[in-house]
Amino acid sequence: MKHEIRVGLIGFGTIGTGVFKLLQRNQAQIRSRLGARLTLARIADIDTKRDRGIRLPSGVLTNDALSLLDDPSLDIIVELMGGYDTARRFVLRAIANGKSVVTANKAMLAVHGAEVFGAAERAGVDVGYEASVGGGIPIIRTLREALAGDRNRAIYGIVNGTSNYILSTMTEQGGEFDAVLREAQRQGLAEADPTYDVDGIDAAHKLTLLIQLAFGVRARFADIPVEGIRQISQLDISFAREFGYVIKLLAIAKQDGRKVEARVHPTMVPRRHLLADVGGAYNAIAVQGEALGSSFYFGLGAGMMPTATAVVGDLIEAGRHILKGCRGRIAPLGYPCAQQRAVTIHPMSALDSEYYLRFMVVDRPGVMARISGILGRHQISIAAVVQREREHRAAVPIVIRTHHAREKNLRQALREIDRLAVVRAKSTVIRIENSLGE
Amino acid sequence: MKHEIRVGLIGFGTIGTGVFKLLQRNQAQIRSRLGARLTLARIADIDTKRDRGIRLPSGVLTNDALSLLDDPSLDIIVELMGGYDTARRFVLRAIANGKSVVTANKAMLAVHGAEVFGAAERAGVDVGYEASVGGGIPIIRTLREALAGDRNRAIYGIVNGTSNYILSTMTEQGGEFDAVLREAQRQGLAEADPTYDVDGIDAAHKLTLLIQLAFGVRARFADIPVEGIRQISQLDISFAREFGYVIKLLAIAKQDGRKVEARVHPTMVPRRHLLADVGGAYNAIAVQGEALGSSFYFGLGAGMMPTATAVVGDLIEAGRHILKGCRGRIAPLGYPCAQQRAVTIHPMSALDSEYYLRFMVVDRPGVMARISGILGRHQISIAAVVQREREHRAAVPIVIRTHHAREKNLRQALREIDRLAVVRAKSTVIRIENSLGE
Repeated sequence: MKHEIRVGLIGFGTIGTGVFKLLQRNQAQIRSRLGARLTLARIADIDTKRDRGIRLPSGVLTNDALSLLDDPSLDIIVELMGGYDTARRFVLRAIANGKSVVTANKAMLAVHGAEVFGAAERAGVDVGYEASVGGGIPIIRTLREALAGDRNRAIYGIVNGTSNYILSTMTEQGGEFDAVLREAQRQGLAEADPTYDVDGIDAAHKLTLLIQLAFGVRARFADIPVEGIRQISQLDISFAREFGYVIKLLAIAKQDGRKVEARVHPTMVPRRHLLADVGGAYNAIAVQGEALGSSFYFGLGAGMMPTATAVVGDLIEAGRHILKGCRGRIAPLGYPCAQQRAVTIHPMSALDSEYYLRFMVVDRPGVMARISGILGRHQISIAAVVQREREHRAAVPIVIRTHHAREKNLRQALREIDRLAVVRAKSTVIRIENSLGE
Repeated sequence: MKHEIRVGLIGFGTIGTGVFKLLQRNQAQIRSRLGARLTLARIADIDTKRDRGIRLPSGVLTNDALSLLDDPSLDIIVELMGGYDTARRFVLRAIANGKSVVTANKAMLAVHGAEVFGAAERAGVDVGYEASVGGGIPIIRTLREALAGDRNRAIYGIVNGTSNYILSTMTEQGGEFDAVLREAQRQGLAEADPTYDVDGIDAAHKLTLLIQLAFGVRARFADIPVEGIRQISQLDISFAREFGYVIKLLAIAKQDGRKVEARVHPTMVPRRHLLADVGGAYNAIAVQGEALGSSFYFGLGAGMMPTATAVVGDLIEAGRHILKGCRGRIAPLGYPCAQQRAVTIHPMSALDSEYYLRFMVVDRPGVMARISGILGRHQISIAAVVQREREHRAAVPIVIRTHHAREKNLRQALREIDRLAVVRAKSTVIRIENSLGE
């Protein structure tokens, strides 16, 4: 019986430092749960000099990642370097060398998941990636194992902490997107280049993984329509409030028979739904199951220690499988990649949704009639209208909430409306979700 | 390689029927995830005649449970009969016969868990009990595996659907406890004998399991102080609202160094906390981790299909372990029973809490002064007082919110106050929890 599980860690940034701290702090508890010592034996990072506020035994830290991947004394490789190609190569090499892998890299898995998961299945090793979606929220395990007997209908996720922080701040404290983003950057809550977060790319990476876990279908990141939050203004937030909604960047996936819908975009969520209460940098995922009904999972989606908790949970599981001789006990997706059903993601143009529309128009008689006329000709029926005087001299907002309409029709109507001389800015569209369950 | 996992089910009531339906409905998906057929081969119930609305192949249903336990062709026994002694005997016999067990029986596990889990560890078989706490919410798996690397600080659970339904109904629709209970019984949402649910016993059973999973300590059901919800009145609900709280039956456990607190009682929860939004028969568990911070898990805590989902998730896991030759991969508690730390549950008298107190008094000058005088002499300091005229002719309520105080002191003060001639009924005490985290 082995008495030690030896781990090599590649990418010693914030989360890696958290993993080191957690393994050290809870050494005895982890040993008791695993039945062996869990040792962070070697660490690789391009920066071996930076002060991370911790003391490493000498010889542990190197800048030679390959030497970890090929070190036969290491049982598990933790990949926390991020990025696509190098991470993919490193993970595949670790797998080829018969090592289990733990990673937080949703971008790489969203794009190269099929290759990585397939390689792991064939090699009979584990790939743990709980940290890649929802930080410390155990949503991977939940979909992969707990809900394995149910047929999932829908997933609604707030899975990007930065954009949720920005939208929550705009909602609770006011301020426009640009100013709130700058302040978040100043506080270290948003990256210098915030594209992945505020343009919905990170959320779509995560959704790519969730769809495959929840529905058993093949999903490609490139097929998921994505809209970010840059165009959301205080006007929209206050109109949303008036209608009883909160604006959240949601990752949405639905399955109905062979039809699979998947999309990431700002969404109006009913104020009474649990998702509306997810503030700050928190994440949450609501799952609708045919048998289970509504369930909801909430926690910190990022940060050093929450994410480290997920990594260490995966390390304990992978270590246990090595000790018990059952690596590859469960396929990374919970079922063999070869059994993924191929589906086409329902095109956005075919979406059937309720919509919030905001038009900035010249305050002149007849404008409302022209806009509603165009909407009507495209089979878009109006549920409510708010026309309010504003301080904007040049233009006033007309806000319309629609009944269910086809996105294709809406797009055609908006192209016509945006060409009107009385319309002074590109119109804003936010989808409304009223069928989130409990 | 086995191509079939054969399951014997004992206790064919509501949940058992749900398990049958789910296995049938999602046969193909389950087969794909497990890698073998999952067959409900034999079912035992004392009632073999009742119409359950499903068609069983002949020969499947028997009233001879022992014949299932001793049937060498069965791989897993599902125990859904409930109760203590017979269930314990049956489960131990299944384990002795080398079978894995799946059960929803929190009462039996709360009382006989050490014996059952110890026997399973020695026999190297699995005991799945996800369905025993929180119905379809995967809280057992989460505490046992996902959070295994973190040190849990506190758990706050709404884990009894019946009492939550009654309190939610009283809060949202009015009505006193007795009337709402009767209506719940009429609708089948409460048992004819509601003791286990409304007196907090069921919640304490579940808390006994959660404490052991979350803290790694030994916990005995008999050591957990329990109060039910029978004494909660509309008066308390409306005062709670005035103070910004909602009354919930909470199962609470906290760990601070070697000190472990555990208790079940009606609790005032800040209206803005996620737990306050858990309505109807829903359950939820909030977990505070040292590294993870706040996390929250929500779903249907009872009912045919949600509970069946948890049972089937456990069946797939137990089946997978049989196929992969790694039964007993993880100890039922996530660590060996022998490594449980023995602790003494902190006595209720030593509790330090904020309190809501309601006194029904004769409306006469000087009463408030006498009550506050007694509280002061016992080191209980007052945060707020509401004295309101009511329709009650004989008595008016005085309501006091205290700062942090020692329960022992409070009890002494209440004994004195309840003896005053101007006090017309036993005073009501509800503990307030302001430190629930996010």
